[in-house]
Amino acid sequence: MYKFTNDYSEGAHPQILKALVETNLEQTIGYGEDKFSLEAAELIKKKLGRNDVDIHLIPGGTQTNLIAISTFLRPHEAVIAPLTGHVEVHETGAIEATGHKIITMEGTEGKLGPADVTRAVQAHTNEHMVKPRLVYISNATEVGSIYTKAELTALSDACREHKLLLFMDGARLGSALTSTENDLTLGDISVLVDAFYIGGTKNGALIGEALVICTDSLKEDFRFHIKQKGALLAKGRLLGLQFRELFRDNLFFELAEHANTMAAKIQDALVALDCPLLLHSPSNQLFPILSNQIISELEKSYSFEIQKRVDADHSMIRLVTSWATRESAVDEFIADLRKLL
Amino acid sequence: MYKFTNDYSEGAHPQILKALVETNLEQTIGYGEDKFSLEAAELIKKKLGRNDVDIHLIPGGTQTNLIAISTFLRPHEAVIAPLTGHVEVHETGAIEATGHKIITMEGTEGKLGPADVTRAVQAHTNEHMVKPRLVYISNATEVGSIYTKAELTALSDACREHKLLLFMDGARLGSALTSTENDLTLGDISVLVDAFYIGGTKNGALIGEALVICTDSLKEDFRFHIKQKGALLAKGRLLGLQFRELFRDNLFFELAEHANTMAAKIQDALVALDCPLLLHSPSNQLFPILSNQIISELEKSYSFEIQKRVDADHSMIRLVTSWATRESAVDEFIADLRKLL
Amino acid sequence: MYKFTNDYSEGAHPQILKALVETNLEQTIGYGEDKFSLEAAELIKKKLGRNDVDIHLIPGGTQTNLIAISTFLRPHEAVIAPLTGHVEVHETGAIEATGHKIITMEGTEGKLGPADVTRAVQAHTNEHMVKPRLVYISNATEVGSIYTKAELTALSDACREHKLLLFMDGARLGSALTSTENDLTLGDISVLVDAFYIGGTKNGALIGEALVICTDSLKEDFRFHIKQKGALLAKGRLLGLQFRELFRDNLFFELAEHANTMAAKIQDALVALDCPLLLHSPSNQLFPILSNQIISELEKSYSFEIQKRVDADHSMIRLVTSWATRESAVDEFIADLRKLL
Amino acid sequence: MYKFTNDYSEGAHPQILKALVETNLEQTIGYGEDKFSLEAAELIKKKLGRNDVDIHLIPGGTQTNLIAISTFLRPHEAVIAPLTGHVEVHETGAIEATGHKIITMEGTEGKLGPADVTRAVQAHTNEHMVKPRLVYISNATEVGSIYTKAELTALSDACREHKLLLFMDGARLGSALTSTENDLTLGDISVLVDAFYIGGTKNGALIGEALVICTDSLKEDFRFHIKQKGALLAKGRLLGLQFRELFRDNLFFELAEHANTMAAKIQDALVALDCPLLLHSPSNQLFPILSNQIISELEKSYSFEIQKRVDADHSMIRLVTSWATRESAVDEFIADLRKLL
Repeated sequence: MYKFTNDYSEGAHPQILKALVETNLEQTIGYGEDKFSLEAAELIKKKLGRNDVDIHLIPGGTQTNLIAISTFLRPHEAVIAPLTGHVEVHETGAIEATGHKIITMEGTEGKLGPADVTRAVQAHTNEHMVKPRLVYISNATEVGSIYTKAELTALSDACREHKLLLFMDGARLGSALTSTENDLTLGDISVLVDAFYIGGTKNGALIGEALVICTDSLKEDFRFHIKQKGALLAKGRLLGLQFRELFRDNLFFELAEHANTMAAKIQDALVALDCPLLLHSPSNQLFPILSNQIISELEKSYSFEIQKRVDADHSMIRLVTSWATRESAVDEFIADLRKLL
Repeated sequence: MYKFTNDYSEGAHPQILKALVETNLEQTIGYGEDKFSLEAAELIKKKLGRNDVDIHLIPGGTQTNLIAISTFLRPHEAVIAPLTGHVEVHETGAIEATGHKIITMEGTEGKLGPADVTRAVQAHTNEHMVKPRLVYISNATEVGSIYTKAELTALSDACREHKLLLFMDGARLGSALTSTENDLTLGDISVLVDAFYIGGTKNGALIGEALVICTDSLKEDFRFHIKQKGALLAKGRLLGLQFRELFRDNLFFELAEHANTMAAKIQDALVALDCPLLLHSPSNQLFPILSNQIISELEKSYSFEIQKRVDADHSMIRLVTSWATRESAVDEFIADLRKLL
Repeated sequence: MYKFTNDYSEGAHPQILKALVETNLEQTIGYGEDKFSLEAAELIKKKLGRNDVDIHLIPGGTQTNLIAISTFLRPHEAVIAPLTGHVEVHETGAIEATGHKIITMEGTEGKLGPADVTRAVQAHTNEHMVKPRLVYISNATEVGSIYTKAELTALSDACREHKLLLFMDGARLGSALTSTENDLTLGDISVLVDAFYIGGTKNGALIGEALVICTDSLKEDFRFHIKQKGALLAKGRLLGLQFRELFRDNLFFELAEHANTMAAKIQDALVALDCPLLLHSPSNQLFPILSNQIISELEKSYSFEIQKRVDADHSMIRLVTSWATRESAVDEFIADLRKLL
Repeated sequence: MYKFTNDYSEGAHPQILKALVETNLEQTIGYGEDKFSLEAAELIKKKLGRNDVDIHLIPGGTQTNLIAISTFLRPHEAVIAPLTGHVEVHETGAIEATGHKIITMEGTEGKLGPADVTRAVQAHTNEHMVKPRLVYISNATEVGSIYTKAELTALSDACREHKLLLFMDGARLGSALTSTENDLTLGDISVLVDAFYIGGTKNGALIGEALVICTDSLKEDFRFHIKQKGALLAKGRLLGLQFRELFRDNLFFELAEHANTMAAKIQDALVALDCPLLLHSPSNQLFPILSNQIISELEKSYSFEIQKRVDADHSMIRLVTSWATRESAVDEFIADLRKLL
């Protein structure tokens, strides 16, 4: 049984484990102020081409979202998010649990555009309603699409016009940035958004997301909030070492590229077999629509999520590749698809 | 520079790292339902001698405290904690951030007794005040003391009489249970408290605390709360594997015992040198009172926390040993102490 | 300039003011335990035909909603509400500010049915999502419609099937219950829902809503929550006296009936003039669609809310009548309408 | 049975009720933007001698405290309050329920001084602890004492030095300002604190506190928070009219002065009878220490709170006078005291 269920089925890239083993008995200070964490932050800044950002390493994605958003907002301020946004659908109301409403907008292919933002702002006119203040997007999105530089620039402009913060969930930022369709750099993003995170968990780390705060007014006292929400690891070195390895050279990008290549290979096969897809995916998540019978056949050898019923006989499934996806497994899967389709 | 600063200066016990490396490419399902996490829970239950508890693996201690407490309480209910309690002093108001007041009681040597609890209850008489509902203690305490079975039984009885939940923070439970002065077992604790956690981070794990919920009415839907607070790791295997290793045989206890032995060795030397101590410590934390001059001398070769000024010329420091403390470092430290005292 | 803007443009019914004046210098105990509040609760219970409910008098509607909902729910539980629900649209995120997500369902004419509830429940399948637990409805709804006994019974059954609490916002319950189309009694409601409130502010009181808790498990310690949210008035007599007057005889119902009669008169005129309406309203709110030119003319003598643009030339307005609406003003308004339409 | 239990046993001053009756059928707009509320704000500003403050009328004291404090603070910031502070003791954890810790300091006679503030700040050194940010005081205090201009100036200077906000709970500000020992004006206070409120409920209003925000940075979007916490009354006129009457001429001060005069009369009698007092009270609350036997005798004709046991035979009681206290009742009480003491 091979899993295409998600991009966190395996442990960490071996280079990361090796670093953990090698440094294991070095004594470091705690709570993210160890030399490995500092080194990781420096390496990420170098990739961004900027020194004037704050970088915080946080164990998980939901945690990063909830800490950043609840720190950035005052109690009456709300989040604008796409209907498919991870914070809206899959985080057990974590944002609302910190007191903030999420205003959902339909968007297009999981993305928000300037018109969505403007409409949300215009619908909130006085103190009987929450005040929209932060736009939450993800790149790559929950449905596998990515933002072009033009799209992100237009959205960023709209946010600034309406005095909205722009926050990018980058749980799958590696996949977005190494997509063959991508024209954004880490540096571009740091200029266009107010804060974003670089996802480690779904790209080769055991745990860890690197939050990058770009806007000065959001930086003050941020570590208090990490601690208050229980996310300041005593052994912060565990996060530092992982990001040091990912960003020392190009490991972070190489791993993501592998995931994309594996997804593209499957997608090409599906397209060649005339299998309909939710959208042509530029990243590591595919959403093909298959007959329930074929799905049952595939489930004998592979595991994946069934996303939703499309009609009486068809469903949409989700296939996810990762840094660890074995090319031989992909080849077998394609061969099996060819037999079935 | 050798650190006696805390018990999380190093990485993980090598056996844990070995297990991570060996299982790294096995595909598992996410969010704590992987086979390693299930195995760890079974092993812990076996050590407890009980099957009717729920076990949840959570990355950190502050997080475990805040999730458990905010899940167990209704909005008007409050925590009773010792003045030195970790939740009161060192968690950036994490409990209050979930909406609950902490009522502090002085206690004795970091511990609460039945009289403390009764007094707190009696001081809260009507709906203009919060309603005390949960007693938070830690074992070992913040000042290194431990609960005897008689003490914990008396406290437990008082809690039941006043319809209070009893929660034990076990960040250093390993050290308490392997103390030469201890007469409690894991099984005893599971009967006397409503929930407690077994600390991994301070006893050889990279991260991880094992929350044990003993009382049935507290169990329902607990995983929702872990997720909502951002503590449900995608790669839950990281927690599962560590606790599997710690509890497969007796590693958890062996590591804690080493820490205690190292602390006892230092304490014996301090006592022999007539150095005053905050209390005679049965666990891995010592609080000697030294002249500022000697402290300065020691700081040239060792790092530790200065806890507080005692008088113009003296301060209390904290020395912490761990599973990783090198006996040779302890011997050198003692030799240096002898030269100075 | 006569206001049809809302049902809280005037002060209180004169009988209420008279009672305030007459009892003014009687000394009473505070915080809702005065004799007037107790008397009011008894009178309401008599109207309900039940003694086994708890009644709490609370200053305002948003406050009643937020206190009840946050008291009834555990942190991971969510509210299901219609898209037009007051808690969703017009309370500045008050529910989310207490930590709970609102799941919105489209519904029909501002009402929810069993199918809406079932769909909401089915969409929330595991601990990565909030757990639906309470269904929020209002009667009359935000768009002026009311629930029939059959509709409320069907919804109540669905809630019980799915273990959901049913909560009715009764800010305009007087208008609903005295509608010519109504077949529900206060007693019926108390059996079909878990809690509801009887709105005073919009039906002749200065302030005040009477929350009725019908389900035993929701009653415990409720006054703690009223106090914690700042809603326990020192001079609780102000609430008690008003509800005593409203429910001593039939004042509450007489006032609401007047509002309905006035609205019906306007509605009949609009229908006779072929003016389209959002829906045929059985209560004290009307939503006619008029040309912008006619609206401008009307605004010279009357004030009302413009709800939304319908097309380039037309908008929907809201007309609200109340216990205090002068029939002569209604007649003039109808006469003016006839001239314009 | 005459009540000296508190200062909210009666309704409102008759002039206030008269104004409610006279304006009852005037139609006004809702939610605190009515002409009476605007007029009240102007009148208060005139008494303050300042136009550059924001004034918000809020139904109750706990509500005003919790809205102001939760609006002014970021999530990691804490309140410093005296051990006897109303927010600490008698508000059911309302502040903690909004997420903020209260740091208590002993203070002197219910008051905080610069040294208390400095000590609290110095004890909070890093991100593992909350960050003190707002000092909460009340004037008059919970034990009846008042701040002198010199004391408030010194405290204000200390707050500014430590970048702390200073907030004054003025539930009994009338009594403080009309004390024979007072040397502060409303204008002085507005310069020395960042925000304060002028209590109406305990000084002749049915409900209502006037929050005065003096510091510009605290003003933005404040009405959103009033609404979110359920404190924006639909019929805001009820608050506006009351404060218009209280501040149109000098009614507010005359009422408070009466309360003080009545208290002084009782205090003089107690002193003449050598009865010990918690402190010599300059305001409308007295805390005499009496034998339990005398207390029992007094309870036959008067009602008051027994604050605490002093020894086996003595207890401290609380006597409160108000704008409505009848001088004849005071005289009888004194006569009865003379018989008993």
